[in-house]
Amino acid sequence: MPADSDLSPRFQQELVALLGQEGALTGQAQREAYAWDNSGMRHLPQAVALPSTRAQVADVVRLCHQASIPVVPRGAGTGCVGGSLAVQGGIILSLQRLNRMLTIAPADRLAVVEPGVVNADLQARLAQHGLFWPPDPSSARSCTIGGNLAMCSAGPNALRYGATRQWVLGLTVILADGSTMRVGGKTTKGVVGYDLTQLLIGSEGTLAIVVEATLKLAPLAQARRTLRASYRTMEQAALAVAEVMSQGDPPLALEFLDPAAVTLVRSQHPDICHPDGQALLLAEVEGSADEIEHQAKNLAERLSRLDPVEVVIATSAEASKKIWAARYALSPTLTRMAPKRINEDVVVPVSALATLITGVTAISQETGVQIVSFGHAGNGNIHVNLLTDPTNPAQKPKITRALEQLFALVLELGGTLSGEHGVGITKRDFIHWELDPCALTIQRQIKQIFDPKGILNPGKIFARDETLETNVPHFP
Amino acid sequence: MPADSDLSPRFQQELVALLGQEGALTGQAQREAYAWDNSGMRHLPQAVALPSTRAQVADVVRLCHQASIPVVPRGAGTGCVGGSLAVQGGIILSLQRLNRMLTIAPADRLAVVEPGVVNADLQARLAQHGLFWPPDPSSARSCTIGGNLAMCSAGPNALRYGATRQWVLGLTVILADGSTMRVGGKTTKGVVGYDLTQLLIGSEGTLAIVVEATLKLAPLAQARRTLRASYRTMEQAALAVAEVMSQGDPPLALEFLDPAAVTLVRSQHPDICHPDGQALLLAEVEGSADEIEHQAKNLAERLSRLDPVEVVIATSAEASKKIWAARYALSPTLTRMAPKRINEDVVVPVSALATLITGVTAISQETGVQIVSFGHAGNGNIHVNLLTDPTNPAQKPKITRALEQLFALVLELGGTLSGEHGVGITKRDFIHWELDPCALTIQRQIKQIFDPKGILNPGKIFARDETLETNVPHFP
Repeated sequence: MPADSDLSPRFQQELVALLGQEGALTGQAQREAYAWDNSGMRHLPQAVALPSTRAQVADVVRLCHQASIPVVPRGAGTGCVGGSLAVQGGIILSLQRLNRMLTIAPADRLAVVEPGVVNADLQARLAQHGLFWPPDPSSARSCTIGGNLAMCSAGPNALRYGATRQWVLGLTVILADGSTMRVGGKTTKGVVGYDLTQLLIGSEGTLAIVVEATLKLAPLAQARRTLRASYRTMEQAALAVAEVMSQGDPPLALEFLDPAAVTLVRSQHPDICHPDGQALLLAEVEGSADEIEHQAKNLAERLSRLDPVEVVIATSAEASKKIWAARYALSPTLTRMAPKRINEDVVVPVSALATLITGVTAISQETGVQIVSFGHAGNGNIHVNLLTDPTNPAQKPKITRALEQLFALVLELGGTLSGEHGVGITKRDFIHWELDPCALTIQRQIKQIFDPKGILNPGKIFARDETLETNVPHFP
Repeated sequence: MPADSDLSPRFQQELVALLGQEGALTGQAQREAYAWDNSGMRHLPQAVALPSTRAQVADVVRLCHQASIPVVPRGAGTGCVGGSLAVQGGIILSLQRLNRMLTIAPADRLAVVEPGVVNADLQARLAQHGLFWPPDPSSARSCTIGGNLAMCSAGPNALRYGATRQWVLGLTVILADGSTMRVGGKTTKGVVGYDLTQLLIGSEGTLAIVVEATLKLAPLAQARRTLRASYRTMEQAALAVAEVMSQGDPPLALEFLDPAAVTLVRSQHPDICHPDGQALLLAEVEGSADEIEHQAKNLAERLSRLDPVEVVIATSAEASKKIWAARYALSPTLTRMAPKRINEDVVVPVSALATLITGVTAISQETGVQIVSFGHAGNGNIHVNLLTDPTNPAQKPKITRALEQLFALVLELGGTLSGEHGVGITKRDFIHWELDPCALTIQRQIKQIFDPKGILNPGKIFARDETLETNVPHFP
């Protein structure tokens, strides 16, 4: 056994006894691989547990409960807010080996899966039945279902299909003391008792650890079309979003790139946008083969009401791919420009989108922080990217000012601080800005019920220092 | 002040001081009107409060909290499980005067309403914007939004649109001590903290009292078509449901009537079903004007795979109306036959529908209780009607045996005891059959957080006698 973990030798021995040498990692180099996630932050865990069965998950949690050692559940580590980092030490409990798809039942429109199943792997399997699971985070090729449920993470599809929580029927979880609890069920309706399934989804591993999920499925549409609309100003584009959303079926996706984003992508994709356009909307419609052309034309007409420079319907799969390539080129480009950029995922009501974008420009000018915005316009869910380096002490005060101004603006507009990334550690000192004080108190009490010893993913969601919560800016 | 309420004169005076004489009813005759609901049971409240503002709701709850007097929130009293009855005395708090529609925001696809708004009134108003709120209980013309949220009640639309809880963005509630709490928000995405909105929906007024709801809206479809499929056996009809649900878009509604129901309705509507048919499926599809015919034909083709006697697509609004009239004639017919009939709303996975129906027939034969089944087949949500009189002591043992056998069967098949009616008092002694013991314990602890004095709708959801919970039949 390597000696460089600071857990007691006895605890380490017990962990190895439960999981074997290959399932209980305590060496520095092995732990290092689990010290990072997509937030860019680093917290070295004291050990890494890699259970292969739910019984092993229960055993590990029970052991940690007895020893009062933190347990941090982890999927693929693709989260953006540090949710899977061992910020208070303890062990990382990776669920990647629990990756079986147990049941796919087309008539019941459900799949029963373990949490380590990768989102894209599930989709590939479901497609054989003409079905899919709507949640589509941009990390779908690597992120796990367990992570998707822990963070209630989402992607463009949420516009048409709603939040991730709507696509879960039941869960089996391990509680803080190692016992197993089943909530929800296999049916699309059910109103017996309080809805603990919904309480657990999005709880970021702080209440229990999912070991099995029963997912509700949707039928795959026969056909899709991609549209691109270029506007002279961001305000026109934002008003076009409100126009589209105020009537008729929502498209599958309705994304936008602000002028700063368009300018950046143009260097690699010169034809991303009409030459006279500064702001871009990308949309996808889906439906039956018979009606898809009609749908696309209908959306094009709605996108045309705010005097666009151009509205294009892609006429081939290749043309669609090219349009989306621009959207997907953006994140890597931003990461190259500012490897430690801050990517906020605020949300405002769609009618407030134009005001938010104007406000973000003002914040950028006032603080001197370069900001690029893009994202899920149809949901009002905007990825506000601060192209800066939070580890540079000289940048710190500017970043703090920009973020505080952004969050204040979002809340003034009736929005929320996170649409799909979650709180983790990056927003824990701000949630009291958004939440009603009574709601925050009740949430802390619920955490206490589920996890009286505070071993489940400690340090996440709630502010470290409760006295912080007395300091709330005034919102109308 | 009438002297026939047994509340203390001081409490009665304080109630009148808060609400005026017309808002605080204490006379026997006045209270009698609030002693009943659609469950057919009777519990006379000690007083009735009719607040007109949320401040008055808070004041009344605060007063009751100080005096430790039960508060039973009530919408229109259309619930089926006694949820709005004052089973432990105290006051009925009617929310019918809080009936303002505060905001309708088409671009944000939301409406902000008070709980006393009648479902159908909201729909009429929304239709002016081409929008609707999907939950459609059969009582829509009289039931209130507050009641819909308290019970998470639903109707046929849930097949296509999902549960009621999916159509709520945020709530403002009065807590047990009279304080006000805001949860959720105005956006279709949001993952900051635990989802208390979902916890409150379906909590039957036992955790808090809704005084404002922000509802998510959907666009009204342009066109609809009704289909009717007659089968020789119930088993064929149930297999046809599984066939329809295993691929493609779900219809808006997919309802069934079992042979007993068909026979009953035939006496008034001779052409309800093809003469050679015994079991009936009714379906509704919706979509754009261009594609509706194609959709209807596609569904007709799917309904035809299990050798029906006949599949008919209604060719006019009048023909559609006639088809649905048969479905809607059923409930009043059953009530005439057995005014105190028991209407259970169990749910099983769609693939288990045929097994459930066979089992129900066997239970009817074994116990001698006449049973008629119909309901939301596409969700596996079956209204199992026991045509009997539970107030007749001679019937009681048979009824108990039939219900226990039904519930055991439903749970063996992976189902739930209630799809849309809730627990109230009629199922409170059975929820431990369904719920995991850990989940039940946690639910009791959550109730304790929200309502430590136990004044909010006491006697609902949880068994009166906790020792009952040790007696659970064995399910595989």
